[in-house]
Amino acid sequence: MALIVHKYGGTSMGSVERIRNVAQRVAKWHRAGHRLVVVPSAMSGETNRLIGLARELQAQPDPRELDMIASTGEQVSVGLLAIALKAIGVDAVSYAGWQVPIRTDDAFTKARIASIDDARVRADLEAGRVVIVTGFQGVDPAGHITTLGRGGSDTSAVAVAAAMGAEECLIYTDVDGVYTTDPRIVPEARRLARITFEEMLEMASLGSKVLQIRSVEFAGKYKVRTRVLSSLTPPDIPLAEEMASGTLITFEEAQTMEQAVISGIAFARDEAKITVMNVPDRPGVAYQILGPVAEANVDVDMIIQNQSVNGMTDFSFTVSRAEYQKALDVLGGSVRPKLGAGDIVGDPKIAKVSVVGIGMRSHVGIASRMFRTLSEEGINIQMISTSEIKISVVIEDKYLELAVRALHKAFDLEQPVG
Amino acid sequence: MALIVHKYGGTSMGSVERIRNVAQRVAKWHRAGHRLVVVPSAMSGETNRLIGLARELQAQPDPRELDMIASTGEQVSVGLLAIALKAIGVDAVSYAGWQVPIRTDDAFTKARIASIDDARVRADLEAGRVVIVTGFQGVDPAGHITTLGRGGSDTSAVAVAAAMGAEECLIYTDVDGVYTTDPRIVPEARRLARITFEEMLEMASLGSKVLQIRSVEFAGKYKVRTRVLSSLTPPDIPLAEEMASGTLITFEEAQTMEQAVISGIAFARDEAKITVMNVPDRPGVAYQILGPVAEANVDVDMIIQNQSVNGMTDFSFTVSRAEYQKALDVLGGSVRPKLGAGDIVGDPKIAKVSVVGIGMRSHVGIASRMFRTLSEEGINIQMISTSEIKISVVIEDKYLELAVRALHKAFDLEQPVG
Repeated sequence: MALIVHKYGGTSMGSVERIRNVAQRVAKWHRAGHRLVVVPSAMSGETNRLIGLARELQAQPDPRELDMIASTGEQVSVGLLAIALKAIGVDAVSYAGWQVPIRTDDAFTKARIASIDDARVRADLEAGRVVIVTGFQGVDPAGHITTLGRGGSDTSAVAVAAAMGAEECLIYTDVDGVYTTDPRIVPEARRLARITFEEMLEMASLGSKVLQIRSVEFAGKYKVRTRVLSSLTPPDIPLAEEMASGTLITFEEAQTMEQAVISGIAFARDEAKITVMNVPDRPGVAYQILGPVAEANVDVDMIIQNQSVNGMTDFSFTVSRAEYQKALDVLGGSVRPKLGAGDIVGDPKIAKVSVVGIGMRSHVGIASRMFRTLSEEGINIQMISTSEIKISVVIEDKYLELAVRALHKAFDLEQPVG
Repeated sequence: MALIVHKYGGTSMGSVERIRNVAQRVAKWHRAGHRLVVVPSAMSGETNRLIGLARELQAQPDPRELDMIASTGEQVSVGLLAIALKAIGVDAVSYAGWQVPIRTDDAFTKARIASIDDARVRADLEAGRVVIVTGFQGVDPAGHITTLGRGGSDTSAVAVAAAMGAEECLIYTDVDGVYTTDPRIVPEARRLARITFEEMLEMASLGSKVLQIRSVEFAGKYKVRTRVLSSLTPPDIPLAEEMASGTLITFEEAQTMEQAVISGIAFARDEAKITVMNVPDRPGVAYQILGPVAEANVDVDMIIQNQSVNGMTDFSFTVSRAEYQKALDVLGGSVRPKLGAGDIVGDPKIAKVSVVGIGMRSHVGIASRMFRTLSEEGINIQMISTSEIKISVVIEDKYLELAVRALHKAFDLEQPVG
């Protein structure tokens, strides 16, 4: 039968009762004849508790020691899940990342997986055991424990699925799939039965926090069939019914069904924008502005530079609101004088709304429909940026919900695809 | 300068504030020029919390998985202590047992240390770092995590000290040394400046829970100079003063000072005694009785069999009160009929009191003074057992405190040794 990887989030592992539920679900798959590798996260709140202890001792703890501490949350989870499985008669064995081993580089707290040796896991599977592997962590060439950064368990699961050639990687989470937009804002939001890898990438990076973006990249790179499912369905729900739920991330555009033009409306709150005015239009300017910002560890999201007029242009970008002041300080300090630029202006009260859909490649008029919809609601567009499969606009943050609802309706997203 | 091993108990590591205190004490030793290896326990309560989670899932969890879970408490501790040291400018690095590696057998939850490879630790020490190693755990030949059982961090510390030829192993705990008896029962109880290894062994196994008995055995086997110290003194107390506190476990009888005849009064509450009456006096009988008891995982303490009369004898032993009924069930079930023995009688309300002292080897009259003292207090002696350096008696449990106080006084233990 098939080799399947399951991944369970921290909420699913959040209590003894919930761990029992996970065990029942895994047992159901195992008893149906599948070979199972399970990657559970730390119990919810545990990683934060551990990192909190470390930060009480030192504001910027040593990253290697932080990984030593933070990696224990998943180690507890794998042991508990193995015990829960044995308690219901399913043979199981747990491994920490270093035991598999899952080899990474030595970038503590944000390591990248280099390789996975699956011999040990495969031997256990062949002996009929469910194998439980810690997410979020690995071991570097010198034998130090590393972690992959927040949400890294998704990446671990997809990486294990890729390394072992698993038929499918099932990501169980506390939502039941990917929606056309956030149902808390648009009650009519609809679950997508499938989404392409490229769309998922845009949705994830734009704030639909269903899957960690790196895991989606990994799934794309190694063509891992990945499905997002709810861990809140009854654990004994029939397999076929369980598989029909959730959202499948595919690597081909649907052939047999009409593809919706737009898959969903993504958005990001708590953004801020910064514009450096009157920048000389010459090579290297973008780097001179963003280099120091990146060095200050400020993540930049949208970047926009328009056609220059009289050799001068305006250079804009967005950052998360929490890093707005830091970015302004960097630019105001050394960058502006060196650049010979004009004023630096910013606005910490903006939001970003995007329409995403692989279908827009072959459909004209998506942008104009989006802009008309916003205009009819009286929402001013401050910035625009586009890619092959998405159009993003920056608007005043107070209009965010209104914009998302209006766009969801304008693109008929509440209607099932026919 | 000297290579010193420090061990800190769970109470000493129980909060961020206390971990800071430990770091300050370690830093003081490091700055005095010593090379330091530190073995901290899990934060107090943590190991119980983790094992409690496992037992909620299954009453008898798989031992391998239990070790996977329980070993994380110490891993968190070593990381936190490394961060606390770095926060005050002392370079430090932490290792889990498998990283050192500390190699053990595969007896999960009660593994024995087989060997310790000190190359990695030594390299860090030479680079000027404090090295922090998880107590309580190691790795078996197949690469599984093992634990050494309760109190195993003491054993880890002594084993590391032995493997590295450390000058001394300092066990910091929440008492300031070994006392002539429990000060909660006898306020005049006096701290012993030194105690021989053999006496410590008797004191530890008899219920003076200062050091885990296996760590004392280890210290004896490898002649590790071990000192029990309080972690409650101010961390910046001068080194000489700190060394003068606590109790040193020595391997030679004192040459230059008068040795007290008796070092202390040990005791064990919550014991129970069982006697199998009219046992045929023939080879193999003791095994026929205690074999099934041991198989039921009941720990037996004292064992007494007196001279037989007319080919029949009575066979008695003591167990912890919690296991009294279990032991009775085992004996009443299959053992008695097979043995052709008489009644089985027991008493779950007894206590054991012992006088311990290497000096008694060369002094007559210790036993008679002990028995006279108890007689003068009207305390009946139910059973007697002796070794080279201790005499133990079983008495009714309600007389325990009275007996300990009377013996402490009768042997002049409140007086400093002159």
